Amino acid sequence: MKRRLGPRELLYPMPAVFVVSAADGEVDVMAVAWIAIAGAKPPSVMMSIRSTRKTLELIERSGEFTVNTPRADMAAQLDFTGIVSGRTVPDKLREAGLTAVPGAVVSAPIIAECPHNLECRVARMFEHGDHTVVIGEIVETHVDEAVLDESGEKPLADRIDPLVYIPTVREYRRLGEKVADAYTVGKRFIG
Amino acid sequence: MKRRLGPRELLYPMPAVFVVSAADGEVDVMAVAWIAIAGAKPPSVMMSIRSTRKTLELIERSGEFTVNTPRADMAAQLDFTGIVSGRTVPDKLREAGLTAVPGAVVSAPIIAECPHNLECRVARMFEHGDHTVVIGEIVETHVDEAVLDESGEKPLADRIDPLVYIPTVREYRRLGEKVADAYTVGKRFIG
Repeated sequence: MKRRLGPRELLYPMPAVFVVSAADGEVDVMAVAWIAIAGAKPPSVMMSIRSTRKTLELIERSGEFTVNTPRADMAAQLDFTGIVSGRTVPDKLREAGLTAVPGAVVSAPIIAECPHNLECRVARMFEHGDHTVVIGEIVETHVDEAVLDESGEKPLADRIDPLVYIPTVREYRRLGEKVADAYTVGKRFIG
Repeated sequence: MKRRLGPRELLYPMPAVFVVSAADGEVDVMAVAWIAIAGAKPPSVMMSIRSTRKTLELIERSGEFTVNTPRADMAAQLDFTGIVSGRTVPDKLREAGLTAVPGAVVSAPIIAECPHNLECRVARMFEHGDHTVVIGEIVETHVDEAVLDESGEKPLADRIDPLVYIPTVREYRRLGEKVADAYTVGKRFIG
């Protein structure tokens, strides 16, 4: 039997990444779970951020941001950047012991400790209720050599060891066992 | 050392859900990984779908869709709905052995076998490159009683047993071990 719970913003599972923004010498960082890929041509992300957040203010001023994927052992740092505001803690990166280094294209820095970073430029942003949706074009990707496969082109998820966020129970999890190969396992249903 | 890979639409990890659409007696279903929560007031989702997809045509016609979270043992069915077009296989739900049942609010059905379903109404949609971004307001949530906690209000992720999608290596995974409690573990950095 199913039960109706009413409108609830629940999706299982979610990513959990750092978004870094900068403008006029100010830098901010926050945890974001409401983020997904928005397109391939051009490569893009979309994310939703509460409109009152300092991160959003800096993104509005600069038109740029970076997405930084933590290793699972960075869960405490990530969580900290989500529960504390950049308006009360001006240098959250330093407080969390994270290292901001320059990217290659945009002015917002990337986080050195994160094995995967995306540099993004705002393509579009609009308010949706009490949040703002930001669509960003991905203009550069940085990956730690240690997490790449032998070809040097393909990041291996188990080496990144990313966090998985679960709403409601509010847990950070690791990736679990492999279930199947995508674009392959479904062929059994092709008549 | 980091390596620059150029603009790449990579995010780790992603959800992997069924999106069901219907219009004028036609029903379609497809796998979507480019999806996230878009807001809380009102509860909303955002997703990106290739503009040529039949699912998008039906959503444009009806203004409605449902999001259906598979259990991990439904990976093959999910994969099938992602690799086959509704234009060549008119009844993908039946081919995959999935049961469409009426929702409570919108005309698009929900998938009975999925332990978590969201009914959604389009709030906004726009083209972004070769994809279309759809923002949908969540108007009802259905959850199997078997995956709810004792309060009957909170879905437990381990009972849902959702899929986690990993791009590049193109794998479906299960949820792994718990790393930490969100909104808690980060407090250690508060000075």
